[in-house]
Amino acid sequence: MSDARQPRSGRRKGLPDTRTEILNAARGLFARDGFDRTTIRGVAAAAAVDPALIHHYFGTKRQLFLDAIALPVDPAQVLGPLRDVAPEALGETIVRLIIDVWDGGVKEAGVAALKAQIIDPTSSVLRPFVSEILTATLAIHVQDNAQTRIALAASQIGGLLLMRYVIELEPLTTMTAEELAIHIGPTIQRYLTHELPIS
Amino acid sequence: MSDARQPRSGRRKGLPDTRTEILNAARGLFARDGFDRTTIRGVAAAAAVDPALIHHYFGTKRQLFLDAIALPVDPAQVLGPLRDVAPEALGETIVRLIIDVWDGGVKEAGVAALKAQIIDPTSSVLRPFVSEILTATLAIHVQDNAQTRIALAASQIGGLLLMRYVIELEPLTTMTAEELAIHIGPTIQRYLTHELPIS
Repeated sequence: MSDARQPRSGRRKGLPDTRTEILNAARGLFARDGFDRTTIRGVAAAAAVDPALIHHYFGTKRQLFLDAIALPVDPAQVLGPLRDVAPEALGETIVRLIIDVWDGGVKEAGVAALKAQIIDPTSSVLRPFVSEILTATLAIHVQDNAQTRIALAASQIGGLLLMRYVIELEPLTTMTAEELAIHIGPTIQRYLTHELPIS
Repeated sequence: MSDARQPRSGRRKGLPDTRTEILNAARGLFARDGFDRTTIRGVAAAAAVDPALIHHYFGTKRQLFLDAIALPVDPAQVLGPLRDVAPEALGETIVRLIIDVWDGGVKEAGVAALKAQIIDPTSSVLRPFVSEILTATLAIHVQDNAQTRIALAASQIGGLLLMRYVIELEPLTTMTAEELAIHIGPTIQRYLTHELPIS
């Protein structure tokens, strides 16, 4: 809105479009190939720009990744407390953190992101989010079979977000973060830290 | 395509349209008010038809409900075995049955239904499905807090279907029904039959 009061100084050498094109290309490659196998060079080729331009705009591959998946919150801030949590409180803490963040203003952007990913999973940011950010954050707590454990936890957390915020299935919509943490925390705890029934 | 070869015999007294209008009205009311509080009379009013016409087309309210939510499989056939299952095998059996049905040909219709419900939750068939069919089927096994227990189980099952079939998060996509039953069955078992941490 306040933009309207400023005289526009014309297009700045197509800069916004190029940046968007880089982000779109990056999102596609991260979703298809994952974080490790995606390179700045590959993104540059897909967006038909010079790799140096990507370094200029985004600095690092990690920053490009974070900008591409455009999370409505900074995952480091949300998930940071998990690094220091007591091992046996991990499950409840994860549920409480996620619900607090969604209830605290992320809900609308989160529902929109969830819907977009469900409608077009090929450009999903959820898979890279789970495989990069969650895995890195939880690595300290998850000793073996990390991929299986984190995918199982993601299935319960994704289902909770789906039922609470999208389908609005009672009583999941009216329960407090604390109640949900008590009910669902033990499931996350079991998936992440207990001995798996098979591996 | 083959329609083009047959001469059209004119509209048959608007019958297909009326039936569709009744089903649309029914779907809306079942989603909004649930099975018990939705009446044939209410659906007739919403569709602007005579209640006798609904009885003529659908017989019972239950049949109207089943036709309105248009499941790709007959829930009685899928969930029937749950009535006779040993109580301690309930969780694993539910996961195995659902995955077997989805893998056995329901996957495409199921993903489409899941997407449709996520895009427009107000016409969701998922809430009535959970609250009527699942609740009725599981009543024999679930003693107290049925609504809470079944909603918790639905969050895990919905999340599993979402991650396996829509987001395609590994290793959930490549695991067999048996492996998923072993990993996730205990979660469903706990939600449905163990003592709840709070109620």
